[in-house]
Amino acid sequence: MAIRTIVWGENIHENENQTVRELYPDGLHGCIAEALNQDANIDATTATLQQAEHGLTQQRLAQTDVLLWWGHAAHGDVSDEVTERVCEAVWSGMGIIFLHSAHFSKPFKRLMGSSCNLTWREAGERERLWLTSPNHAIARGLPNHFELENEEMYGEPFGVPEPLETVFVSWFQGGEVFRSGLTYKRGAGNVFYFRPGHETYPTYHDENIRTVLRNAVNWAHNPARRIEDPVGAPNVPVNEAPEPIEERGPRLHRDGEAGFR
Amino acid sequence: MAIRTIVWGENIHENENQTVRELYPDGLHGCIAEALNQDANIDATTATLQQAEHGLTQQRLAQTDVLLWWGHAAHGDVSDEVTERVCEAVWSGMGIIFLHSAHFSKPFKRLMGSSCNLTWREAGERERLWLTSPNHAIARGLPNHFELENEEMYGEPFGVPEPLETVFVSWFQGGEVFRSGLTYKRGAGNVFYFRPGHETYPTYHDENIRTVLRNAVNWAHNPARRIEDPVGAPNVPVNEAPEPIEERGPRLHRDGEAGFR
Amino acid sequence: MAIRTIVWGENIHENENQTVRELYPDGLHGCIAEALNQDANIDATTATLQQAEHGLTQQRLAQTDVLLWWGHAAHGDVSDEVTERVCEAVWSGMGIIFLHSAHFSKPFKRLMGSSCNLTWREAGERERLWLTSPNHAIARGLPNHFELENEEMYGEPFGVPEPLETVFVSWFQGGEVFRSGLTYKRGAGNVFYFRPGHETYPTYHDENIRTVLRNAVNWAHNPARRIEDPVGAPNVPVNEAPEPIEERGPRLHRDGEAGFR
Amino acid sequence: MAIRTIVWGENIHENENQTVRELYPDGLHGCIAEALNQDANIDATTATLQQAEHGLTQQRLAQTDVLLWWGHAAHGDVSDEVTERVCEAVWSGMGIIFLHSAHFSKPFKRLMGSSCNLTWREAGERERLWLTSPNHAIARGLPNHFELENEEMYGEPFGVPEPLETVFVSWFQGGEVFRSGLTYKRGAGNVFYFRPGHETYPTYHDENIRTVLRNAVNWAHNPARRIEDPVGAPNVPVNEAPEPIEERGPRLHRDGEAGFR
Repeated sequence: MAIRTIVWGENIHENENQTVRELYPDGLHGCIAEALNQDANIDATTATLQQAEHGLTQQRLAQTDVLLWWGHAAHGDVSDEVTERVCEAVWSGMGIIFLHSAHFSKPFKRLMGSSCNLTWREAGERERLWLTSPNHAIARGLPNHFELENEEMYGEPFGVPEPLETVFVSWFQGGEVFRSGLTYKRGAGNVFYFRPGHETYPTYHDENIRTVLRNAVNWAHNPARRIEDPVGAPNVPVNEAPEPIEERGPRLHRDGEAGFR
Repeated sequence: MAIRTIVWGENIHENENQTVRELYPDGLHGCIAEALNQDANIDATTATLQQAEHGLTQQRLAQTDVLLWWGHAAHGDVSDEVTERVCEAVWSGMGIIFLHSAHFSKPFKRLMGSSCNLTWREAGERERLWLTSPNHAIARGLPNHFELENEEMYGEPFGVPEPLETVFVSWFQGGEVFRSGLTYKRGAGNVFYFRPGHETYPTYHDENIRTVLRNAVNWAHNPARRIEDPVGAPNVPVNEAPEPIEERGPRLHRDGEAGFR
Repeated sequence: MAIRTIVWGENIHENENQTVRELYPDGLHGCIAEALNQDANIDATTATLQQAEHGLTQQRLAQTDVLLWWGHAAHGDVSDEVTERVCEAVWSGMGIIFLHSAHFSKPFKRLMGSSCNLTWREAGERERLWLTSPNHAIARGLPNHFELENEEMYGEPFGVPEPLETVFVSWFQGGEVFRSGLTYKRGAGNVFYFRPGHETYPTYHDENIRTVLRNAVNWAHNPARRIEDPVGAPNVPVNEAPEPIEERGPRLHRDGEAGFR
Repeated sequence: MAIRTIVWGENIHENENQTVRELYPDGLHGCIAEALNQDANIDATTATLQQAEHGLTQQRLAQTDVLLWWGHAAHGDVSDEVTERVCEAVWSGMGIIFLHSAHFSKPFKRLMGSSCNLTWREAGERERLWLTSPNHAIARGLPNHFELENEEMYGEPFGVPEPLETVFVSWFQGGEVFRSGLTYKRGAGNVFYFRPGHETYPTYHDENIRTVLRNAVNWAHNPARRIEDPVGAPNVPVNEAPEPIEERGPRLHRDGEAGFR
């Protein structure tokens, strides 16, 4: 069965800014979904901020293998309820890929547990991405480096925890560097951050970028059956302890009582 | 100058439960602070849930090097504002140590970005902590393993990200294991989780436990000057780029405009 | 195409010790290969210490996707040349799985860069393995814990670097714990250490163990084309620099000269 | 007591190459030791390849807290015996700092367990180091980036395991990037790799570089008492098991017998 994938788009600058509309007439999310669907192993649809529950109902997330997130101007408009729902889906096994300015999205900040800040400059300068993890699944079919002639600059320090693996590091014409491809795991869910993708440039039409996105979806997919209650904290009664023990000392909890949360 | 340390206590079971009150007449926070102050390099005070702003004003946190957190029954009563304030202090360089049931506290869940769940049993069984990182600063002066005759059991899987280092792993009489001492870094702040410390047992009177706590404060202390704005995302204008570049292509932002958040 | 897998066995105690011979009439390597071949996606053969070049010629390794290693009594008899050859295969993308007493094998010590020591006791005690990484590919189809009624004890501290992920932690009847399943990456090669497997017990006939082994082979397999020269350090001449630069200052190397090694 | 530090130098190009001799009349090791001794907390001496046992006798290493290693042209001349001795000292708690072309030194390759390769170009181009880990002890007193006007280029991919922390990433004028400051732990020993330092440039006279070196020695120092036998694998007899057990099943080893290695 194909990997059930949602591309979530904020869907604002596509409607308000002439440059962005011409580059992405179907929205950034539409362009990204189209790139993903070129892989027969991926079945990508879209969801946007403006839809009910931002298009991310409990039921839909339960049937989603990988979620991609692009947002920029309206991070604050994403509801806390949907944010927590997305995070629980990740902990239960859904893969998630954060793109470019999603570094400041609510779900990314929630999953990283850190400030997620960086420096930036919008000058259409050249970016060159170097592969730092040879033969990583996310780099399949790529050269050891590739260029984007016009991109926004993001500079270090990037306020994220040390990753499981650093997959790409970017060189910028103006003199900065950035760790552009980072992998994490949160619960049973694989997490990937990928830097490029400023909306005023044709980044998502670039073939190398589209290859990374397809690879990343395949990498992020965890085929295991979802964990049913990813936040549960089950009590193991004394008579179900793996080794026979007898209860000793004072207790706070009565038999069968749930723990505090 | 001594390490300015706050022991934060929920301060509920000490008042409501006869067993806990007898074990900890000055509160768990009071007992822990007393243990810390045996180290001339530590200057420990306390704060509790019931105080204004839970005793953790912006001003007080700005002058705190290390914060210890013990909570259990009232995680939900901690305000979101103080939670975020504590996290920003960590990102700017304050060390933080989470004790026992603080695994489900708001600041720990926020800093981990994960579910932080586990299995548990309150049966007063024997726990044996094994040191897994020889000569770690947190283990100074300890034997390679030590025991607590009565403790609550916490079992794997523990819903946390892979740590920087696993310092302790616990063996339980009833057959479970748990990664009991884990280090993390979030921004400029060092983070340590330490498992033992159920309030109905005399854990914080145990000499090995008290040694761990003192070591952990010394380890968590980052002597560097605090980062002033740990969440800032400064723009680097074209004319301040380290290498001379000329602006190219369309722009979203006007000169001097702040980025979206 | 199936995953081309070699099970390497030291093949000594199977011939010299009556207990081991009765448990493993085809050798430990034979029993493990038979378990792997129950997976249609795996094509497992064997190699042993006594064969020419220990059965691990350059040509054979070049056509191997995953190597499993079991050794105990004769680590010192493995040639340094074959050890280095195995490591280079790993760096170029071959997966490798170290079993039980292979913690002291030459290739494991070479790939870890550490002492790889531990404590041990041969008493046929009960071992219980707990899954610490929910839904990890190596744990597919397993319960959250399982037992081996008789095993050798290995205890912490285990002299290895902090892993990418801790997948299993063991509880021992005699009171010790051990990080029993650890993942690493070295170059393009995935590395897994799995603790159980003492030769005087029927461990490799246990269904849960056999499931782990099959899962681990599937996890360790990197389908990318092997890196041709995994130790090469290519010079990038000035006229091939991605950005145009002019040579400045004094030089040590002449044009076209190889670097020092 | 001051941190007992040895700067190990290959001491070849200083004698053979006019440029290097003029830059470093006391040798690279002499210049580095002089920089370190400006810190009252450091007591730095030197050792060189040409001395008996390369100046690194068992006795001297036993009384050394931190070792710095600079080598380039003669990695192969370092004896395997001294290499192993240095690694055992690290596992027992000695800190070690590898400088520039020491990426291909025997001790670094031995401790990393990987290929340690990279790309390179000797063109005297500009290097800019960016701090990626805010407030790291190794970055004390440094700006968030600094430049070296002339350096050799090292490019990714760098054949090392994912580090504990990435402290610096370099930008090169010719278009490459490199993870220039990486921390590791091997046994009880802290390990730091720091990229700059080509012998034909005045890098070790740069104030920022000298600050990094002093910080790194302070960071790498583990004040704990050295582990006496860092490679020992002690047997724990049945009657010394922490929990009472009875021996069961067949055994390979006789009472008191040492384990295989």
